[in-house]
Amino acid sequence: MAILSALGTEVFIPIAAAVGIAFAVVQWLLVARVKLTPAAAAASGGSKNGGYGDYLIEEEEGLNDHNVVVKCSEIQCAISEGATSFLFTEYQYVGIFMSIFAVVIFLFLGSVEGFSTKSQPCTYSKDKYCKPALFNALFSTASFLLGAITSLVSGFLGMKIATFANARTTLEARKGVGKAFITAFRSGAVMGFLLASSGLVVLYIAINVFKLYYGDDWEGLFESITGYGLGGSSMALFGRVGGGIYTKAADVGADLVGKVERNIPEDDPRNPAVIADNVGDNVGDIAGMGSDLFGSYAESSCAALVVASISSFGINHDFTGMCYPLLVSSVGIIVCLITTLFATDFFEIKAVKEIEPALKKQLIISTALMTVGIAIISWLALPARFTIFNFGAQKEVTNWGLFFCVAIGLWAGLIIGFVTEYYTSNAYSPVQDVADSCRTGAATNVIFGLALGYKSVIIPIFAIAVSIYVSFSIAAMYGIAVAALGMLSTIATGLAIDAYGPISDNAGGIAEMAGMSHRIRERTDALDAAGNTTAAIGKGFAIGSAALVSLALFGAFVSRAGVKVVDVLSPKVFIGLIVGAMLPYWFSAMTMKSVGSAALKMVEEVRRQFNTIPGLMEGTAKPDYATCVKISTDASIKEMIPPGALVMLTPLIVGTLFGVETLSGVLAGALVSGVQIAISASNTGGAWDNAKKYIEAGASEHARSLGPKGSDCHKAAVIGDTIGDPLKDTSGPSLNILIKLMAVESLVFAPFFAAHGGLLFKYL
Amino acid sequence: MAILSALGTEVFIPIAAAVGIAFAVVQWLLVARVKLTPAAAAASGGSKNGGYGDYLIEEEEGLNDHNVVVKCSEIQCAISEGATSFLFTEYQYVGIFMSIFAVVIFLFLGSVEGFSTKSQPCTYSKDKYCKPALFNALFSTASFLLGAITSLVSGFLGMKIATFANARTTLEARKGVGKAFITAFRSGAVMGFLLASSGLVVLYIAINVFKLYYGDDWEGLFESITGYGLGGSSMALFGRVGGGIYTKAADVGADLVGKVERNIPEDDPRNPAVIADNVGDNVGDIAGMGSDLFGSYAESSCAALVVASISSFGINHDFTGMCYPLLVSSVGIIVCLITTLFATDFFEIKAVKEIEPALKKQLIISTALMTVGIAIISWLALPARFTIFNFGAQKEVTNWGLFFCVAIGLWAGLIIGFVTEYYTSNAYSPVQDVADSCRTGAATNVIFGLALGYKSVIIPIFAIAVSIYVSFSIAAMYGIAVAALGMLSTIATGLAIDAYGPISDNAGGIAEMAGMSHRIRERTDALDAAGNTTAAIGKGFAIGSAALVSLALFGAFVSRAGVKVVDVLSPKVFIGLIVGAMLPYWFSAMTMKSVGSAALKMVEEVRRQFNTIPGLMEGTAKPDYATCVKISTDASIKEMIPPGALVMLTPLIVGTLFGVETLSGVLAGALVSGVQIAISASNTGGAWDNAKKYIEAGASEHARSLGPKGSDCHKAAVIGDTIGDPLKDTSGPSLNILIKLMAVESLVFAPFFAAHGGLLFKYL
Repeated sequence: MAILSALGTEVFIPIAAAVGIAFAVVQWLLVARVKLTPAAAAASGGSKNGGYGDYLIEEEEGLNDHNVVVKCSEIQCAISEGATSFLFTEYQYVGIFMSIFAVVIFLFLGSVEGFSTKSQPCTYSKDKYCKPALFNALFSTASFLLGAITSLVSGFLGMKIATFANARTTLEARKGVGKAFITAFRSGAVMGFLLASSGLVVLYIAINVFKLYYGDDWEGLFESITGYGLGGSSMALFGRVGGGIYTKAADVGADLVGKVERNIPEDDPRNPAVIADNVGDNVGDIAGMGSDLFGSYAESSCAALVVASISSFGINHDFTGMCYPLLVSSVGIIVCLITTLFATDFFEIKAVKEIEPALKKQLIISTALMTVGIAIISWLALPARFTIFNFGAQKEVTNWGLFFCVAIGLWAGLIIGFVTEYYTSNAYSPVQDVADSCRTGAATNVIFGLALGYKSVIIPIFAIAVSIYVSFSIAAMYGIAVAALGMLSTIATGLAIDAYGPISDNAGGIAEMAGMSHRIRERTDALDAAGNTTAAIGKGFAIGSAALVSLALFGAFVSRAGVKVVDVLSPKVFIGLIVGAMLPYWFSAMTMKSVGSAALKMVEEVRRQFNTIPGLMEGTAKPDYATCVKISTDASIKEMIPPGALVMLTPLIVGTLFGVETLSGVLAGALVSGVQIAISASNTGGAWDNAKKYIEAGASEHARSLGPKGSDCHKAAVIGDTIGDPLKDTSGPSLNILIKLMAVESLVFAPFFAAHGGLLFKYL
Repeated sequence: MAILSALGTEVFIPIAAAVGIAFAVVQWLLVARVKLTPAAAAASGGSKNGGYGDYLIEEEEGLNDHNVVVKCSEIQCAISEGATSFLFTEYQYVGIFMSIFAVVIFLFLGSVEGFSTKSQPCTYSKDKYCKPALFNALFSTASFLLGAITSLVSGFLGMKIATFANARTTLEARKGVGKAFITAFRSGAVMGFLLASSGLVVLYIAINVFKLYYGDDWEGLFESITGYGLGGSSMALFGRVGGGIYTKAADVGADLVGKVERNIPEDDPRNPAVIADNVGDNVGDIAGMGSDLFGSYAESSCAALVVASISSFGINHDFTGMCYPLLVSSVGIIVCLITTLFATDFFEIKAVKEIEPALKKQLIISTALMTVGIAIISWLALPARFTIFNFGAQKEVTNWGLFFCVAIGLWAGLIIGFVTEYYTSNAYSPVQDVADSCRTGAATNVIFGLALGYKSVIIPIFAIAVSIYVSFSIAAMYGIAVAALGMLSTIATGLAIDAYGPISDNAGGIAEMAGMSHRIRERTDALDAAGNTTAAIGKGFAIGSAALVSLALFGAFVSRAGVKVVDVLSPKVFIGLIVGAMLPYWFSAMTMKSVGSAALKMVEEVRRQFNTIPGLMEGTAKPDYATCVKISTDASIKEMIPPGALVMLTPLIVGTLFGVETLSGVLAGALVSGVQIAISASNTGGAWDNAKKYIEAGASEHARSLGPKGSDCHKAAVIGDTIGDPLKDTSGPSLNILIKLMAVESLVFAPFFAAHGGLLFKYL
């Protein structure tokens, strides 16, 4: 039917993944050429300099100070050790939780047919026999663990790469902003390509291995594969929440005493929380985000696959059509590879003001190329017409219709990204208004910031609504699933840009701690400021795709659970809806309170050290970094459990006690409410951060009238920035995971809920 | 069938209303005995003193200073004039809007059957003939205007009473806290009883007048009556938003310069914004709130009536059963009357610490008595069994079942009230934790406060969910409508308590401005602090009932529009749901930004006056109060239009272009999302306010360690309080109206949408 044969698909997917991994390795080798040992550093500096240093306008600075190199290397080691030790501690606790949850999955799903080992009639075609539920339980558990481990490895690798790159970026910043940019961006690309490729290849291998057992029972096969998404997202939840609490407790604590009370600069080595703060960037913004986006990717692929498995692809065993979601991701890797070259090789950054446009161009180029890529793969891989299962009815879809679904998701993502940029970049009036409101103090700054965040949801929600309506009209829930996939298809570039930010942030921290000249710090700050906006754009993508993914998963859950209608007018559904809409608030309350409490402890410890260690302020004595690291670690490990349990247990409890209708309500409520808080929280936080940076940079007449650093306006802006920290880096991004995870979990447990759920209503 | 005859109902309702009005007049006369002319003041003080002054522990103070009386009287006049002039300006603008909207209602509803004057088959029983749509349009327009005017009068009267009572409360405070409490509370009661009774009597008269035309067509009759709810709520929207912006712009502006920059006390006469601030309390917290609660009451009655009109009451023309909602309200007036006597006559306040318990007892007593009252009226007015229309099906209900629905609403309200108290009173740990977080500055205060607000939604949402599930299971949408009515049945007491707060607040302001001794101010502050918590409780009630009312209205809309199922899985509904969930954010963004901008202008004006008027700080020159009043007036008139238009136009646009299914989604989405933001915003604001008061009062070891006034902790607390102002008094309470108003508007326009709606989908 399709032009691309099943064999072609079997070959193309692993090749694309291999190319992605190879590209990541090449980028890593290029980064590794910056040496962290004094002698070699000079050599490497020299050799690279010969390459394209001539184009750079800025002067080189301090290239021959070998002490600085040693210091940077030491600091990098300290950060890397702190991050590794935290992640290992975190993984121990999460490991226990995951093991218990794996047993729960096995027991719940195994019990669907009373642990029988006999084949049963299939759900969708009662005349055929499918594999027994017990084996589905076994394979679901296996794919859950596989997803969790892949997610864990993704986060860990990301952190390792970031801590490998940060000091190197600092050292390159001595040679100019262009070199530093390329080092940081290449490192981000290593992470982006590794994650996208490994997520794809693991899923591909799992499908092929599972097929050995399942044979023609594709329904069971892809149902079991959904565990992969659940595993990925569960891990991501703990990574985001734990890492988010860690990083913001350290950040808020360090800022409140250091910047506000003691008037010392950010990342000053005298601040006892400074190492914890830098470790936090790597475990929260890098490892947490890596796990998160891997989770999104795994879930959107699983959602599309499980919906497709009951389409004509699944019924006719059209392997190429079935693997369309994986093919889109494969094309995405190739497209992102080309896109990356635009930043690293085709053009060069010569001035500070070129950084942000270069990053934005990455998004536009990848979206434009990807549109072509999707068109080609849709033409090659899809039959001209096929049918989709639509809550009991059949729906005919054309290959160009499906192309349009993927493309609308892709472009909606870009729109969300640019709206996010408009509301969070200090080049536009919204952030400038927020900065201006600092004239009258912190209170008006907070009021304006909150209002900005609320306002910034309007266009993204319309973009999401239009995508949903159009893609559903074309291809029902499968359309929504592939639209989500479209939004995530350029994930490698998105991750590269996202990871670039914290790497530059850390590079600045290392420059400050190593006592390097202020010019170096200015260069890394410029990299960081551009990273701030792109980080917000990345979050916009993540939230938008989360909304589409969860809706697709929700649709798959409803199909699988045999619910024909989710009627808001039924009280069972409505109470689910209103309680579901409440969950993001409950979750945010927990995470924000956790950050607040941990920050309080951190502040007290930092104050204690400033007060009791003689010579600390003068720089003659060293602070006790380890205690601060321990406070962040303990707080985040302890505090990540309750919100994690809330998200993981809600679908289980609601499904078991109240049944699939109420659970459908909860999922829909959490989705429509959570997406708003997530967008507004992340944009409010981003806007406050950049309003502060706007005042600090003083690039315009208006900005200078508000500054300089240390003025009343600036102090008000710092308060806003501090409030925004937990909003934008802890509770906001975790909400994506909340809505996706509850949906994928419901889908995995759907057979159990359909068979045994709703105990309370049954017995009342 | 029922024990109470139709004649008995016809007599009982107006008698109850008359008793309520008479009681209000008596209370007013008692308040009026405090004279505002020097000579008489002394005489009145003497005479009342003989009554029960002996029991008061506190000493009398400054009774014979006649200058003070004159000053108080002058200030009262200034406040009253400012408030009256603002309300007249506001009413002019709103009047234009209302007139246009009345024409829209007439044209839209008249066009349903092409302005035909012939009778048409009824919606629910096609074999009977109902009145033509053109006349329904006419009567709907009339009842819309009636509702708007009643709401306007309610707000205006409330403001008049409050400005009549505030200086009298100040003067009574010279005799002790007990006397001042009684004066303030009686004044609140005047407003509460006037509103509850006039709302009831106007509705009652309208029904009887409309019946002259409609005769046996009760379906058309009560459909037209729904316009009353729409009119009441539309007026309330502008009242709340306009008044809210006015009061908070003045309050935030006055605090930011006066308290934070110039370090002068609140309500200091040297502050140019002080009169505007006090005017704001009366137009926002009193007139706005009066219109708001009147709107809730009118809507819940209309929702219950319109649902009942298609039940067996309507079909069998059982007038007593039909009027059950009005009978519940009538009983409510009697119950509240008895309850009020517990505060004013049966017990006396002898010490400051007795105030808050006395107010809380009001809520408990009225709820307990009302439970008995509902039981009696359910027994008297309802047949033992009757049938309810339930989206096409019939449902049998018993009179005790319906009693249970009303009672569950009533008690859910009390639970919401007490949870609100727990989260906003500084007697409990949540607010104390927020106060404690001020140790580390404003940022942690804000983080903790936001987290507290998010957390405080959990139990109220569960209470609402349980009420919805139980009352729907018993009596479908009629059950939910009467549950809402139950929550609002003690509205007279609720309003008395609510109005008491701003009256005490104003009394304190007048004491300060009249230069009275600090002991007087301490007494009014104690009254005000108790009022703060009860105001938050009142808001909790308002939000909870708004959720139930809008759900009932939503149910009535869906019935009327002939929608059988609102399926979340349909993309038309889902996009409505997600966009609806976004509307409260859009609306909040507008109102908060408005408060922020207006406050900025106010701050600049106040600063200008302090800088340019010589002798202002020394108290030798008078500030220019009028300019500040003008800034608040202009800002609120200008800024209330966009959010008002958003709420009023959304249902019209969505219904006309996208049709009833999408509109159903929008209503459900706005409801489940709005209720969360409303609760969290109002509790966050209340908590910050009381955290600040906790530090100021210094009543415990812990509180004193954070204080005193002017300490860093206190400054951080003031910032939180200022941020909370627009949240708790502008955007939060307006959100109730948003969700109710969109639902009632959809209901009124349902015949039009059902006939001509969904143009976009029709032509695409």
